[in-house]
Amino acid sequence: MIGWLNHIAIAVPDLAAATAKYRDLLGAMVSEPQALPEHGVTVVFVDTGNSKVELLEPLGADSPIARFLDNNPEGGMHHICFEVADIHAAARRLVSAGARILGDGLPKIGAHGRPVLFLHPKDFNGTLIELEEVTEA
Amino acid sequence: MIGWLNHIAIAVPDLAAATAKYRDLLGAMVSEPQALPEHGVTVVFVDTGNSKVELLEPLGADSPIARFLDNNPEGGMHHICFEVADIHAAARRLVSAGARILGDGLPKIGAHGRPVLFLHPKDFNGTLIELEEVTEA
Repeated sequence: MIGWLNHIAIAVPDLAAATAKYRDLLGAMVSEPQALPEHGVTVVFVDTGNSKVELLEPLGADSPIARFLDNNPEGGMHHICFEVADIHAAARRLVSAGARILGDGLPKIGAHGRPVLFLHPKDFNGTLIELEEVTEA
Repeated sequence: MIGWLNHIAIAVPDLAAATAKYRDLLGAMVSEPQALPEHGVTVVFVDTGNSKVELLEPLGADSPIARFLDNNPEGGMHHICFEVADIHAAARRLVSAGARILGDGLPKIGAHGRPVLFLHPKDFNGTLIELEEVTEA
């Protein structure tokens, strides 16, 4: 069911400083920061060729990563995202097997403009897993 | 400098149970477990097509992931690994820029039989980063 590892997301308290480390210390290709107020984050994409790292900084009062950074002030690995061809089929399969989808259980439009869902980290060894529908994959 | 995202490693307390979740719930291609006693882990590879997830279970008394699991009993994201073409050049560049390499600062032979090093997570937003030399990349 799952396809490519689309990205790993890392929450950071200072996006400019984190971006500089990936660009200058690790020599990585990094994007300009993109503010996504409807998702409560500003993001920089680190292109690894086969996949990407997304550096996330909180944006606004209700950022979904604010509590994570309260608990991990230096930042840390926040979630991983796998691509799926059919998010509704994926949701049905997971729920029927007893896995929990965060929120109301229905896919939402994610930060890339595509349908996404998040699985409960307690069902996957403490790892927050995002599934993103990528129909052209 | 960094190339492909080689893998994300997830420490798990029960490798068989974690493997079953990736295989049966997420429909992923998973390998047989491989015991790597010299690295203190048993590993299952989850093939995502473009990259992989490595599920790590402690093996032996001195496992490098034992303390992580003491702090995170359900498991969690442990490190990410990027490929580099020349690990000694990478080490020089990082050290000269002030980044810290774990251990004695010299590359070691990693779990894939290739030279690796680990960077101090405090230098990279709480993320443990492994660099692995992949000369054919």
